[in-house]
Amino acid sequence: MQQLEPVLAWIDAHREAAISHLQQICRQPSVAAQDWGMKEMATMVEASLREIGAETRVVATDGYPVIVGQLTGDSPRRLAIYDHYDVQPPDPLDAWSIPPFEACIRDGHLYARGVADNKGNLVARLWAARAWREVYGRLPCHVTFLFEGEEEIGSPNLGPFAEANQDLVRADACLWEAGYRDSEGILHLYAGVKGILYLELRARGAAYDLHSSNAPLAPNAAWRLIAALGTLRDADGRVRIPHFYDDVVAPTQRERELMTRFPVNVDALQKSWQTPLLSNPVDITPTERLLYSPTCNICGIWGGYSGSGSKTIIPATAGVKIDFRLVPNQDPHAILGHLKRYLIDQGFGDVEVRELEGSERPAQSPIDTPLVEALIRSARTIYGNEPYVQPRTAGTGPMEALCQRYGVPAIGGAGVGYHNSRNHAPDENIRVEDFILSMKHVAALLAEFATLSNV
Amino acid sequence: MQQLEPVLAWIDAHREAAISHLQQICRQPSVAAQDWGMKEMATMVEASLREIGAETRVVATDGYPVIVGQLTGDSPRRLAIYDHYDVQPPDPLDAWSIPPFEACIRDGHLYARGVADNKGNLVARLWAARAWREVYGRLPCHVTFLFEGEEEIGSPNLGPFAEANQDLVRADACLWEAGYRDSEGILHLYAGVKGILYLELRARGAAYDLHSSNAPLAPNAAWRLIAALGTLRDADGRVRIPHFYDDVVAPTQRERELMTRFPVNVDALQKSWQTPLLSNPVDITPTERLLYSPTCNICGIWGGYSGSGSKTIIPATAGVKIDFRLVPNQDPHAILGHLKRYLIDQGFGDVEVRELEGSERPAQSPIDTPLVEALIRSARTIYGNEPYVQPRTAGTGPMEALCQRYGVPAIGGAGVGYHNSRNHAPDENIRVEDFILSMKHVAALLAEFATLSNV
Repeated sequence: MQQLEPVLAWIDAHREAAISHLQQICRQPSVAAQDWGMKEMATMVEASLREIGAETRVVATDGYPVIVGQLTGDSPRRLAIYDHYDVQPPDPLDAWSIPPFEACIRDGHLYARGVADNKGNLVARLWAARAWREVYGRLPCHVTFLFEGEEEIGSPNLGPFAEANQDLVRADACLWEAGYRDSEGILHLYAGVKGILYLELRARGAAYDLHSSNAPLAPNAAWRLIAALGTLRDADGRVRIPHFYDDVVAPTQRERELMTRFPVNVDALQKSWQTPLLSNPVDITPTERLLYSPTCNICGIWGGYSGSGSKTIIPATAGVKIDFRLVPNQDPHAILGHLKRYLIDQGFGDVEVRELEGSERPAQSPIDTPLVEALIRSARTIYGNEPYVQPRTAGTGPMEALCQRYGVPAIGGAGVGYHNSRNHAPDENIRVEDFILSMKHVAALLAEFATLSNV
Repeated sequence: MQQLEPVLAWIDAHREAAISHLQQICRQPSVAAQDWGMKEMATMVEASLREIGAETRVVATDGYPVIVGQLTGDSPRRLAIYDHYDVQPPDPLDAWSIPPFEACIRDGHLYARGVADNKGNLVARLWAARAWREVYGRLPCHVTFLFEGEEEIGSPNLGPFAEANQDLVRADACLWEAGYRDSEGILHLYAGVKGILYLELRARGAAYDLHSSNAPLAPNAAWRLIAALGTLRDADGRVRIPHFYDDVVAPTQRERELMTRFPVNVDALQKSWQTPLLSNPVDITPTERLLYSPTCNICGIWGGYSGSGSKTIIPATAGVKIDFRLVPNQDPHAILGHLKRYLIDQGFGDVEVRELEGSERPAQSPIDTPLVEALIRSARTIYGNEPYVQPRTAGTGPMEALCQRYGVPAIGGAGVGYHNSRNHAPDENIRVEDFILSMKHVAALLAEFATLSNV
């Protein structure tokens, strides 16, 4: 068994080159939602994989390609590493302290759109593999990098890719994308994600906006929409759509144990959000609520006049964007069917329901897999502390389509971010030291993973 | 007594000049709510009055000036003519077939923001007076034009103007602003208006928009606002605020008689609006509902993301604009007090309630006055039919502050609009022939009004 220390020493000796590579990757915009820079980014990512000696495949999809890089190792174990090379749109631009694609370092922080979510991880993981190759000529275990370009738009083509390329996707386990250190410096690992169903609902009144003096006689699209929305949840936020909760799986004893051991920091959230959390009459902890409650959330609502001053009209149309975050084993399309039937039953068959691209199934990997143990042991070595282990995250990702469906256990939560990384927001940033530490963590993980006899 | 025919002939001979003047007035934006073009418009209006030989006064207020124009006549009778030179905001701009300030004529229709409400009337009435002066050198009766610039924002300064300038406001009767021909070509006269209370409500959640994965724990401003709105009306649209209906005065026998004689044309409304009217379980006619029911109407609602595609956030704020249309003798400020108390009682004390400028009291003039008879007789001459006479309109205006308070009977409903004029909406328009006819109607009215011995 090869020693880890020389690998870590190599990383320390080449840290500036790795940072410089990350800056170069961050300077290339790659906004899938706006079709901005995606081709250039895909080319750079493939070149980076080839540079570290990986055998690459650029697999075309109906959208942006999935870039696969494979490296062989001493152990028969194969670790898949999932990341994405697309980023969120950088708007609003004027809210950034440093322009989002300059990738400048200031006070030890690297600012750039996508540096935390998820280019920092993509590069750190590449360089962790590179370090082993540079020092020993090969890796401790086989590694398959799976880099997609559509995570920020709901991974619509990752499922078909996985289905058509099972030989590429096959692995003993999968290291999931981003991860963040909390204010104590602790990583939070997770073995599942929520699903999502994103809808737009529209109500209509008259054929055009009417003068509001007609209000005693004319239907108002905004009131109509509000009435329909009023049927979706009860006063406590519980969803009233029949069969909505039918397939929800309750936490196991082991999952409850983990949530008790690693609870959500309520005080920190309230302080950051500057609001009390929602009260909840049901007797479950905030952690369980966060991770196990599916939600019906309004992302946006509009209709009629929203400018300054007064305008007296009856809006002809009103709309709302809703995301349902789903938990295992809810199915987005079944939920959509339940919702449509319910609206009709409640007398709201006139309210139009449109599904937006990017619905995803929830996923839950087994938690107590050897990959978790390897991540914990390697974190102990590199960070000097142990990660929290939560059964799942409240976020969403294509874990079901890429891993769960093929029996590959996936674990997320190891990465370059920290509690103020501001993903999806202006001034997205990471601490440069976290980038180096995460590179070392993954390097250590490869060695740990290689030794596992039972994955 | 001078003959009307030469005046009508003069109007026919000068119709193109009058239309051109109207286009010029419509091409000048004058959106009081957005402080857009108001000064230029006031200057044009005063110049127009001076051009027809009126003695003008530009009376400053705390807002936009009231422009007064006086013309003397043969008879001692004085008719006040109230109009306004401001218009509604033109949004949404992309819903217009023709840009709102180009004032183009297409297939005999003139399209422009404000052409029906109320610049077409302002210009038609000016030219009616001008015709008399051009033909006979003076008018049949004294006329006082009262043109304000804040009708669309609730006439906040017209009451103080009237109080401070009673010499200017004094008249035997007042011809109120806009009027519309129905699908049969009939004008609908009215002797009262509704009042209005215009509010903005705002709900708040966290200090900033959150990632929607936090929905199980974080308050959502849009849901909060919808819950508050859900308490305001019952399923039939009846307002649930205690004491809301306390001061409502029921129609008199004479008012019911008029409504039975001149009912709302339900089929025409449904055809124009392309929607069935609201059903109403209470046993009152659509006409009485329209004219005697106070309403709680949403003019606009907003919160979170309303762009294209999906964005997964929890909105930090959400707002709604509401107009309450009030009937005699509801008082806007009493209603505001009832609403605030009710929201607190319902547990929505956190929802901010802000009154926008422009609350107005309802008004009811006596119906059977000589001005009505003069309008009917002159309509018979010009249109070849008789107007309907309804006790009031469903619209709002400063009739109480300008007329009722000083005992001046006011009648509205004679004007240039028609059933598809789309006031306050995209593609606001009039038929050019209605503009000419209305000019003639007012010219004929002046002669009829001059002969009245008892006003």
